[in-house]
Amino acid sequence: MDQMTIHILGCGSATPSLRHLPACQVVEYRGRLMMVDCGEGAQLSMRRAGLQMHRLTDIFISHLHGDHCLGLPGLLSTLSLQQTGGTLTVHTFPDGCRMFRQMVDFFAPRLSYDLRFNEISPKGGETLLDTPALTVTTFPLRHRVPCVGFRFDEKPKERHLRGDAANFHGIPPYLRRAIKQGADFTKPDGTVIPNELLTLPPDPSLSYAYCSDTLYFPALADAVRDVTLLYHEATYADDNLSKAAERFHSTASQAAMIARAASAGTLLLGHFSKAYNNENRHLAEARAIFPSTLLANEGLSLSVR
Amino acid sequence: MDQMTIHILGCGSATPSLRHLPACQVVEYRGRLMMVDCGEGAQLSMRRAGLQMHRLTDIFISHLHGDHCLGLPGLLSTLSLQQTGGTLTVHTFPDGCRMFRQMVDFFAPRLSYDLRFNEISPKGGETLLDTPALTVTTFPLRHRVPCVGFRFDEKPKERHLRGDAANFHGIPPYLRRAIKQGADFTKPDGTVIPNELLTLPPDPSLSYAYCSDTLYFPALADAVRDVTLLYHEATYADDNLSKAAERFHSTASQAAMIARAASAGTLLLGHFSKAYNNENRHLAEARAIFPSTLLANEGLSLSVR
Repeated sequence: MDQMTIHILGCGSATPSLRHLPACQVVEYRGRLMMVDCGEGAQLSMRRAGLQMHRLTDIFISHLHGDHCLGLPGLLSTLSLQQTGGTLTVHTFPDGCRMFRQMVDFFAPRLSYDLRFNEISPKGGETLLDTPALTVTTFPLRHRVPCVGFRFDEKPKERHLRGDAANFHGIPPYLRRAIKQGADFTKPDGTVIPNELLTLPPDPSLSYAYCSDTLYFPALADAVRDVTLLYHEATYADDNLSKAAERFHSTASQAAMIARAASAGTLLLGHFSKAYNNENRHLAEARAIFPSTLLANEGLSLSVR
Repeated sequence: MDQMTIHILGCGSATPSLRHLPACQVVEYRGRLMMVDCGEGAQLSMRRAGLQMHRLTDIFISHLHGDHCLGLPGLLSTLSLQQTGGTLTVHTFPDGCRMFRQMVDFFAPRLSYDLRFNEISPKGGETLLDTPALTVTTFPLRHRVPCVGFRFDEKPKERHLRGDAANFHGIPPYLRRAIKQGADFTKPDGTVIPNELLTLPPDPSLSYAYCSDTLYFPALADAVRDVTLLYHEATYADDNLSKAAERFHSTASQAAMIARAASAGTLLLGHFSKAYNNENRHLAEARAIFPSTLLANEGLSLSVR
């Protein structure tokens, strides 16, 4: 199983169309499911993608526009019909916590699971999740309403112990963990074997950043620096450059400029306006700037690697 | 064009499945679109069915369970992006008016149309719409929460003036309207020609009744007496007779008993539980009691005749 997979459930913009659903995706990490934005229809899209709702642990909402969060009341109500137990945390701005809590209280007064609301700040810089293997942090975006992006970072992994060297130097099993974490090995005779002779570098830590809706601003590259996969909105192509700025959205080229400046591994474009019949133009314009670009689409599951 | 058409956009029950969407339908009457219940995804289903949202004049909500109304915030917000103008009235219980007004105020603070909320009573017996050609009235259902059904009735139509008789008796044009409405004709010499010699009976008035979620209770037949088309929930088949009663739902047989007792023209079954892989059993059990029974399905457009 891949360690980190992004499931695209919706990658359209404000007005739903027959081609794209409103914003919603699921980050699957070692069997844990975390939803990022929750547009109308999210519960049905999960079912369609074969993702079990009761495995959701967190829902991160980037901002309180309807196309990014109106799937919440239905999803949270239906989950309650499933008698799931467990805990689910919705991370959103205080207004959203208040409003969706009220909706859930009305539509699902007897919840079968522990629903928590975590009030987040539009300023970014918060750590929303910190497990032994992964952190989820926020960074500010620039949209018409307060808006944050989310960054998923695997923590540094252990180095690989070289079996031949471990045997040659007679490393006892109880010391192996420490050596994988970087310690040198001191032999009974006092000789110190440096770590680099005993281990190989760790697997790279994977990272994913999600930029839902934002005006282009170059400093965004700092927030998403070196991510393995960058999802960036590309509501428009360059034919609507001025409209993008007016509406605090980006073009595909601008998303590519951010990816290039951030030294991202791969760029995934989404949040497409319904004004386009396809996204060939977005793709071509972005690839001219950042070749490793892909288009999001409903049903796409992409391994982060 | 048919005068009255029912478009089924969703005919599943509480938990959405891959087979059925939550409750939603559109009654089209002489170009006017009226929505009945508005489950999550309603706006997308309208688009899929080729029904233009800006033609909606009324949305009738039978009760405040999520699967009957959680499509409202998205639909009302999207409508605002379309710069439609016009007036749309949402008819629902006071709690729903309050809650959805608040959602719309938050998600679409600058509406481009006149959105009205009409507080209805769970007791039924109200006239929600009264146009020159049509009335929409409510009647009480028995569910776990307050719930009403809706009845659409065409007003009596004009009689057909017989052209041959009109010519023979020399009826002047300015009297024709009165005669179509039932008046006799008095000739210049004082002879009275009775209306029945001058006209043929009017076309029958069409009617449609919608019973969203209800326990079986025989008195319901009085409320839906003589309707041309009866939509009645059939969440379960007879294999779940006791579960139906526990949950204040009906079986297909019970729906058929109501249709028979009411002398309905045709029965349309819906609100199917996701526990069934198909509704063959519902159909067979209902037809054994009321032969003129059909199954609802997403995408079905049915003329009332």
